Amino acid sequence: MADPAQRLHVLPDDELAALDAHWRAANYLSAGQIYLLDNPLLTRPLRPEDVKPRLLGHWGTSPGLNLVHTHLNRVVKARNLEALCVWGPGHGGPAVLANSWLDGSYSEVYPDVPRDAHGMARLFRQFSFPGGVPSHVAPETPGSVHEGGELGYSLAHAYGAALDNPSLLVTCVVGDGEAETGPLAASWHSHAFLDPVHDGAVLPVLHLNGYKIANPALLARLPAGRLDALLRGYGHAPLYVSGDDPRQVHREMAAAMDTAVETIAAIQRTAREAAAAGGTPEGERPPWPMIVLRTPKGWTGPADVDGKPVEGTWRAHQVPLSGVREDAGRLRQLEEWLRSYRPDELFDAEGRPVPAVLACVPEGGRRLGATPHANGGLLLRSLPLPPLERHAVAVDKPGAARHEPTAVLGGFLEEVMAATADRRDFRVVGPDETASNRLQALYGATDKAWQIATLPTDEHLGPHGRVMEVLSEHLCQGWLEGYLLTGRHGLFSCYEAFVHIVDSMVNQHIKWLKVSRGLPWRRPVASLNYLLTSHVWRQDHNGFSHQDPGFVDHVLNKSPEVVRVYLPPDANTLLAVTDHVLRSRDHVNVVVAGKQPCYDWLDLDAARAHCARGAGIWEWAGTEDGSRDPDVVLACAGDVPTHEVLAAAGLLRQHLPDVAVRVVNVVDMTRLMPYEEHPHGMPDHAYDALFTRDKPVIFAYHGYPWLVHRLAYRRAGHSNLHVRGYKESGSTTTPFDMVVRNDLDRYRLVMDVVDRVPGLAVRAAAVRQAMADVRTRHHAWVREHGVDLPEVAEWRWTG
Amino acid sequence: MADPAQRLHVLPDDELAALDAHWRAANYLSAGQIYLLDNPLLTRPLRPEDVKPRLLGHWGTSPGLNLVHTHLNRVVKARNLEALCVWGPGHGGPAVLANSWLDGSYSEVYPDVPRDAHGMARLFRQFSFPGGVPSHVAPETPGSVHEGGELGYSLAHAYGAALDNPSLLVTCVVGDGEAETGPLAASWHSHAFLDPVHDGAVLPVLHLNGYKIANPALLARLPAGRLDALLRGYGHAPLYVSGDDPRQVHREMAAAMDTAVETIAAIQRTAREAAAAGGTPEGERPPWPMIVLRTPKGWTGPADVDGKPVEGTWRAHQVPLSGVREDAGRLRQLEEWLRSYRPDELFDAEGRPVPAVLACVPEGGRRLGATPHANGGLLLRSLPLPPLERHAVAVDKPGAARHEPTAVLGGFLEEVMAATADRRDFRVVGPDETASNRLQALYGATDKAWQIATLPTDEHLGPHGRVMEVLSEHLCQGWLEGYLLTGRHGLFSCYEAFVHIVDSMVNQHIKWLKVSRGLPWRRPVASLNYLLTSHVWRQDHNGFSHQDPGFVDHVLNKSPEVVRVYLPPDANTLLAVTDHVLRSRDHVNVVVAGKQPCYDWLDLDAARAHCARGAGIWEWAGTEDGSRDPDVVLACAGDVPTHEVLAAAGLLRQHLPDVAVRVVNVVDMTRLMPYEEHPHGMPDHAYDALFTRDKPVIFAYHGYPWLVHRLAYRRAGHSNLHVRGYKESGSTTTPFDMVVRNDLDRYRLVMDVVDRVPGLAVRAAAVRQAMADVRTRHHAWVREHGVDLPEVAEWRWTG
Repeated sequence: MADPAQRLHVLPDDELAALDAHWRAANYLSAGQIYLLDNPLLTRPLRPEDVKPRLLGHWGTSPGLNLVHTHLNRVVKARNLEALCVWGPGHGGPAVLANSWLDGSYSEVYPDVPRDAHGMARLFRQFSFPGGVPSHVAPETPGSVHEGGELGYSLAHAYGAALDNPSLLVTCVVGDGEAETGPLAASWHSHAFLDPVHDGAVLPVLHLNGYKIANPALLARLPAGRLDALLRGYGHAPLYVSGDDPRQVHREMAAAMDTAVETIAAIQRTAREAAAAGGTPEGERPPWPMIVLRTPKGWTGPADVDGKPVEGTWRAHQVPLSGVREDAGRLRQLEEWLRSYRPDELFDAEGRPVPAVLACVPEGGRRLGATPHANGGLLLRSLPLPPLERHAVAVDKPGAARHEPTAVLGGFLEEVMAATADRRDFRVVGPDETASNRLQALYGATDKAWQIATLPTDEHLGPHGRVMEVLSEHLCQGWLEGYLLTGRHGLFSCYEAFVHIVDSMVNQHIKWLKVSRGLPWRRPVASLNYLLTSHVWRQDHNGFSHQDPGFVDHVLNKSPEVVRVYLPPDANTLLAVTDHVLRSRDHVNVVVAGKQPCYDWLDLDAARAHCARGAGIWEWAGTEDGSRDPDVVLACAGDVPTHEVLAAAGLLRQHLPDVAVRVVNVVDMTRLMPYEEHPHGMPDHAYDALFTRDKPVIFAYHGYPWLVHRLAYRRAGHSNLHVRGYKESGSTTTPFDMVVRNDLDRYRLVMDVVDRVPGLAVRAAAVRQAMADVRTRHHAWVREHGVDLPEVAEWRWTG
Repeated sequence: MADPAQRLHVLPDDELAALDAHWRAANYLSAGQIYLLDNPLLTRPLRPEDVKPRLLGHWGTSPGLNLVHTHLNRVVKARNLEALCVWGPGHGGPAVLANSWLDGSYSEVYPDVPRDAHGMARLFRQFSFPGGVPSHVAPETPGSVHEGGELGYSLAHAYGAALDNPSLLVTCVVGDGEAETGPLAASWHSHAFLDPVHDGAVLPVLHLNGYKIANPALLARLPAGRLDALLRGYGHAPLYVSGDDPRQVHREMAAAMDTAVETIAAIQRTAREAAAAGGTPEGERPPWPMIVLRTPKGWTGPADVDGKPVEGTWRAHQVPLSGVREDAGRLRQLEEWLRSYRPDELFDAEGRPVPAVLACVPEGGRRLGATPHANGGLLLRSLPLPPLERHAVAVDKPGAARHEPTAVLGGFLEEVMAATADRRDFRVVGPDETASNRLQALYGATDKAWQIATLPTDEHLGPHGRVMEVLSEHLCQGWLEGYLLTGRHGLFSCYEAFVHIVDSMVNQHIKWLKVSRGLPWRRPVASLNYLLTSHVWRQDHNGFSHQDPGFVDHVLNKSPEVVRVYLPPDANTLLAVTDHVLRSRDHVNVVVAGKQPCYDWLDLDAARAHCARGAGIWEWAGTEDGSRDPDVVLACAGDVPTHEVLAAAGLLRQHLPDVAVRVVNVVDMTRLMPYEEHPHGMPDHAYDALFTRDKPVIFAYHGYPWLVHRLAYRRAGHSNLHVRGYKESGSTTTPFDMVVRNDLDRYRLVMDVVDRVPGLAVRAAAVRQAMADVRTRHHAWVREHGVDLPEVAEWRWTG
């Protein structure tokens, strides 16, 4: 690898001029989108009515993004690379749209925006305009897998895209604003999990344009030596490109890109040759290259406005010149600025880019706007899922045996992992908890990805592993999103309480999927599947801080086309649900299931049928005899609530045998919603057939009880619905004490039945008192012995 | 500052022996808490029944925490320092509890756990035991401001505690697991905002014990040079302490602590002398010291169990020896382990620590377990809040003028900032958005904190500023939490959509406050106050990714004792609400308010009265004449919904004058809840008096509409409640198009009235059609012109 300094002269003058023409064209088109309603080629003097009445968009970052795009074009074309770019400063939507229009991919996707003057006018007008396209990089933007709104996730997305894409180069522009966020700061270490043999490469471009909305950016103000130490500490060899003279910056950038690409190729070649010989390279891997690009914010835009500096300051962040329609001087300044790019040299009379502008643009799917990796559904293959029969547990009768549901699932996932050993399109991510969550069977088929030093005491670590563990939910989520959006499959296994760490990330992913579903050219991608375990009811040992079932509530606020929530009550239902979600597309599936031993209720056939229905009556568990309506419905959703409801049903059978009890189990929470509001919602007659219109329903729910009311408030029987669930009561205690503290326990449920079934209260007073007495006894027992009451611990279904 | 290597011999042998005795005592007490139910001093051979039936807790990190605590004791006592420690690996609850018991602070707070054999037995038994204390560091733990459950926030908390505490040294133990999280990774840069003149210091101790639950820790496996570069890049001068020989580690640790404390003192002295002379020190500030402590996980615990290594591996993470009651060999191994600390040398016959053990322990409030900074309510002073009259806008009649509510609030906050210039106990934090959120008046009273390089183009940056801006919601939240829990005041101003980034952090803070409120010895602290602005209805320019009003839903799942939600509809109500929340204690207050010009509805007196009620009828806006009940209630919560409801009321007055309309505005969302469920909840008669029991209620709500149903589902009139709100529809468009797309607009509300008021549909069909026509016209207009319909843009209240 030659020293970049020596390469500064390899760029011939004509190529430099062509690159600069491309860059100017992109800058012109970026500014045009922000400002122009008409007169796109400035074929006549600019008039107020040519300018948009409302000026929206972010100019500041756009020239830098355009520079990176121009030089990526060059290196991709020159070396015929397979490339994807993640634009961290995605608020610079104008830049990415400009480049997609320039490389022709935009017009292919949107034929009504052709690559000519007519199309340019449309490109400009539609930007940030009602009925048009968003101001940020968004699903509507060809070539992108990364929404540019909420900052922090670009580098994690880039690594996710690079995994198992050995010939792909993922360039990731990291803004100096975004670099201050936690998720981005953690992402720098991602290459500790990146396999140079089976994965592609990530080339970070840290863009220091110095300012955010209103403040300097931290990394841009570090002394040079400290910044260099930081980036080397992150494991990178930084290549610096800096300046405000375009010719010099073009030369430096071209040299840096060449060096970076060659260094990456050398690292990959060394690793792959060693792997082909059955080993790993000797010695420490050289650091991965990265580029530090330091250029002015709003470069080439207005230098000053009303005597205040704009170019190179935070004032260039959004719209550097405002009030243009109203102020003739501003209008003149805008026209001078736009003409400074010499559009007449860049576009022909029909508004088509001249050949020099397009000289650097690659062909076909090599274009950044047209890479199939950014439309992952094009590349997606269905997973080879094994028959569930091989993993299902035998259930001769309900409640006869116990299994750890997630451990059973682990066997299934191991087989998926093994079946994708060559295809390498399935990954499991989790924050240091795969084994803690009982999925350790996976290690029979793969390792945990790990590229740095190992010790003899380590287990299941390997350079080619496809289980990803890092103590950062943000990284798990970001990697998986990048992996899925580029056409692969995966599962995120997480402690239930701490998945809230990625609340905002899942918001953005759901929004991305919702919009993508409305774009015919975006092909469906694999769903984002959560397995939430180590859940609230079994965080008796870790205590209050680990108890939060509210992620379900959070995602159910989002678009119903996208969101699905499943609470399988045992091992076989967990298998059936997982099989389903791994086949689904364009959804976010939240599956909540326990890792502790749990009674098996349904055999595989029954589990499949029950999960397909999403909710159903468990006749064997109730005491309806068909001759009359039930007196009460005991409903349950979630493994622990189901356990408690069945125990309550048993107590009722024993103590109040003349009460007709119906047991309803809900796996798919959205079944409770009106079908007008969610595609899985039940019509009223189906809901009424399960829950009745007028009988008391005691609903034991896994999470916050009011969620059930929020889903079912329109149902006829809603006023009879009484929900028990988690109500923020708990500490370090015993499992049964958790349900008692939250009034979800079997005894409390029986008391609820006594209180709510008409006419029962008086004749059942003794039963009610007996239940209350057990709860009192329980309270004393656990405080004395530190374990649950024997009659609770030894309970089993005998119905 | 002497070279630490030269200081290795300054620790006299007797002091070393005493430090080691303290450390052994703490280790013994840590293991004892995990294992022992009885026989705390091992005065007889260990029997199975002496061991807890359920073994819970985290041993792995505990010896390291104990080492840090022992050496902190030493340096605090020797130098009479004011110190607080934040224990990042707070799952090591046994260690922090052990030390608090040793320094006597535990028994002062909990007299039933005295510092003798009886107390030791209680200390052991209560740990992770039902009715006892949590397994993690928690509010119940004296000396702590940091819950040890969810990892990531220790260093941000530490910096928050150090701000405006010039004589405080905040040591922060950062586990190598936690160091992988995003929030922690971002926190390293916090000293760029730490003022050596007015703030205290943070001393990070990065504890590399090598493993997490199941994996190596990333930073522990970096090559030494890379780790060193990283930490220097973070701006620290690392001091390394490493080994598994206690004597050597004690010597190195004592030397490192001395060097660190002296370096900090030198930095502060230089800065303070320069400040006293009216300037800042010349040249670059030397890097802040930190300690890198590399010791085995589970150090001094069982080396091997069943032939597998435990000490020094992930197997030591929780309970290194299990099945002790059942297995005589394991029981013997436990006893040998416990006796290896030689408890008979450490405790006298009554179980009291011998003098050597306590030799390093400081006195009184200098003890880490007794520092008042960890019980911030002890130090809290009420804020000097100015009279609202000085900032209220004049309102002669409703809707006559417009103001930007947050800009009006900015003037009030400026005065609070000015009034605390000397006290320095008020801060405003925000992610680069203080000015964007129109609070820039603050810069009249203070700067934005900034310690690194500045340029002439910068504005409002200063080394002593008390506005904290960084592009990390995690840091804003973490700093503010640390600041509040140590007895100060603050406000977090945030874009509404992106506050979800800290969902999990606010969960933990609410849980902390909930538990603290139940502990008589914890004094109330200032509430955590959010100002959520740049809200969903005015993210028409940034688009769909910036639209999310769900934080309210998220916090309302949490403990009602703690959570408050306010939606002031104009400038004066925002003032009244802010005045209230800044006076409140132990709450999390979410205030949602716009920054765009908004009509002024209420004068200050009316605003105060309305906010105190939380919800009320706006008689002037409706058409009830007192002689009969209203035909319909138009309810609203939030500034934009209020605007639309008033516009709808105006349309009804004009087009359907015989319909009696009541307008109800809700400021405090929890008023809608039953009073049994929230302290602010209205009793049914009050709710019915506002909303009626049987009239249609059209409720225009700021956020997701189902939230209102979830709060009000028990009310008599619930079946007549029809809620409009945000339903995930929006893009880059105009403000009014946002409300139209989500069916919250005035025309849709009028149509709702026509549809729902009995008997109205037929005679009002023409009105309904006229409304629908305007919506159609609007649709075409915004797509043509890019701005709102003139009749919408120019609307004003004329009632």
